[in-house]
Amino acid sequence: MSPTWHSVKPVDDSLRSRAQAVLDQKTKPLGSLGQLEDVAVILASVLGQQIQNLKSAVAVFAADHGIAEVGVSAFPQEVTAQMVNNFLTGGAAVNVLARAARAKLLIVDVGVKAEFDGQDALLSRSIAKGTASFLNAKAMSDAQCMQAMGVGREVVDILWSQGCNVFAAGEMGIGNTSSASAIMHAMTQTPIEQCVGRGTGVYDDALCRKVEIIKQACNKHFSHGQADPLGVLASVGGFEIAALSGAFLQAAYREMVIVVDGFITTSAFLVAAKLEPSIVDYAIFAHQSGELGHAKMLEHLQVNPLLSIQMRLGEGSGAALVLPIIQAAANIYLEMASFESAGVSQKS
Amino acid sequence: MSPTWHSVKPVDDSLRSRAQAVLDQKTKPLGSLGQLEDVAVILASVLGQQIQNLKSAVAVFAADHGIAEVGVSAFPQEVTAQMVNNFLTGGAAVNVLARAARAKLLIVDVGVKAEFDGQDALLSRSIAKGTASFLNAKAMSDAQCMQAMGVGREVVDILWSQGCNVFAAGEMGIGNTSSASAIMHAMTQTPIEQCVGRGTGVYDDALCRKVEIIKQACNKHFSHGQADPLGVLASVGGFEIAALSGAFLQAAYREMVIVVDGFITTSAFLVAAKLEPSIVDYAIFAHQSGELGHAKMLEHLQVNPLLSIQMRLGEGSGAALVLPIIQAAANIYLEMASFESAGVSQKS
Repeated sequence: MSPTWHSVKPVDDSLRSRAQAVLDQKTKPLGSLGQLEDVAVILASVLGQQIQNLKSAVAVFAADHGIAEVGVSAFPQEVTAQMVNNFLTGGAAVNVLARAARAKLLIVDVGVKAEFDGQDALLSRSIAKGTASFLNAKAMSDAQCMQAMGVGREVVDILWSQGCNVFAAGEMGIGNTSSASAIMHAMTQTPIEQCVGRGTGVYDDALCRKVEIIKQACNKHFSHGQADPLGVLASVGGFEIAALSGAFLQAAYREMVIVVDGFITTSAFLVAAKLEPSIVDYAIFAHQSGELGHAKMLEHLQVNPLLSIQMRLGEGSGAALVLPIIQAAANIYLEMASFESAGVSQKS
Repeated sequence: MSPTWHSVKPVDDSLRSRAQAVLDQKTKPLGSLGQLEDVAVILASVLGQQIQNLKSAVAVFAADHGIAEVGVSAFPQEVTAQMVNNFLTGGAAVNVLARAARAKLLIVDVGVKAEFDGQDALLSRSIAKGTASFLNAKAMSDAQCMQAMGVGREVVDILWSQGCNVFAAGEMGIGNTSSASAIMHAMTQTPIEQCVGRGTGVYDDALCRKVEIIKQACNKHFSHGQADPLGVLASVGGFEIAALSGAFLQAAYREMVIVVDGFITTSAFLVAAKLEPSIVDYAIFAHQSGELGHAKMLEHLQVNPLLSIQMRLGEGSGAALVLPIIQAAANIYLEMASFESAGVSQKS
């Protein structure tokens, strides 16, 4: 497959040091705002003067999964479409949290098994009515994978052209923790048992069955050694996951700050980071999900999430929830007094 | 000492179950919003209908400490007064974070070694110009301790009468991590080495010296067995810590939600919780501080903080930072659609 994304340039170390130096003059012991300072450094180094005018958007990519048909989820497949309608009428968690954060919310259909006619609030970019079951075949063709990444790129460019500079993203797709687990396994070589969690709520036998299905699928797709990131995405991914990977790459190219949500979203980020490692410089990790495997994914990326409060809903709910913390970090950077301006004595 | 606080009634279990039942009907897998659901349960069970109209305030209690004179802090003692002036002119972290959360901020002088004439924004309730060094004597008399608790009670009643229903609190006082460490040791029987951290930034020899000083002081005050909570507060506490204990007790009595900040604030809560264990039902713990000992304090209280991002500034900065998350939890409770109203299928 030929690359269809722009290369991502690392954020200049000198910009990061300069931002930290600004924080070090604020009226507080050095480093005493912890990761809030790290967030401020990302904002200042990525956005420059734009830190004064953060504009956040949350994009939720939705698609169906063939793998859902073999019983990996606690919820029936039609819930994907039902939840998209819930997003469109404003009743889901991500609606509430995006509203609370005064962030724009955009819902994107990349391949839900339903029609959403006449829904202005929806961006319709359906690639197919769900992926194939990756137990038996590739989830999507290489061309579909490229197309899905292109949808992510387009979404980011729409938001960017509207002045958005903080890009938060989430997903909806019954069955997609199975895709994310398989991607995690392929990208990090973590044993499958440590990559597969309860998703929306599978327990005991159902969980064992989910592990077995993903093991079987991974044996089929990856038995001939490590696949390349795009090959992994096409083999076991989902349209919404490929769109997320494409969106993250484009957001970094546009020099926006990226806010990564939970387990599935991070699996898309893993793929993007393998293609363009510098993307990590642009990213804030909202939370460590309650889904088994997410902690190890974050460890693999060597990043620290802001929250660890056992959320495991997806939809971009964690990313939307931390937007006010990100705004607070910008305010700290911009508004706090320095030792000199406030006449406060420094450490003796 | 005679008690000068009202007893705190436990929050009714049936109110908590009813609140959880409301959350369980929302369009999300059961429990998938993690601790955000716990926060919503506290808000709904403590505030009832008032959850629809959260009104937050942050009170910062400031006082000086005799123990600072023996060199337990990285910053000189005059920084307490300088930071109070910084609070009054709006340049400190807690100002920025309270503004970002649209919360009222109230600064209370309970015993700073300075005069703040003509400062309307300051509530002047100075008990003395700092405590005595608890290395040699009780930090304060029993009467002063009662008086300081009374200041906290008064502050809560001022905010309560203004319609505030979420009470967040913080402190400022060079030397007060030493008080908090000694209180922690006395209240939890944790070895002193595990109670003493770097505070504003003491390292190596200075840290060893801080441990030795607190050990010596605790031997002096607590060698005759376990002291009662108020005795501990008067012996090794600070005016701002005693005020915080009194404020927390009154906030629970007034059926407000309490937001506890970091290490020092939690030490005040430990005292309050020993006096009135039901106070825990009213409290949200903002964060686990980077200060050594805080994790163990929270464990002792059997509570889970929202953030763990290595903040260690005090001032109520962590409590102010989580106010938007608390508002988001209320919005989830109030605004999210139910499975029925949204026409979403439930778990199969």
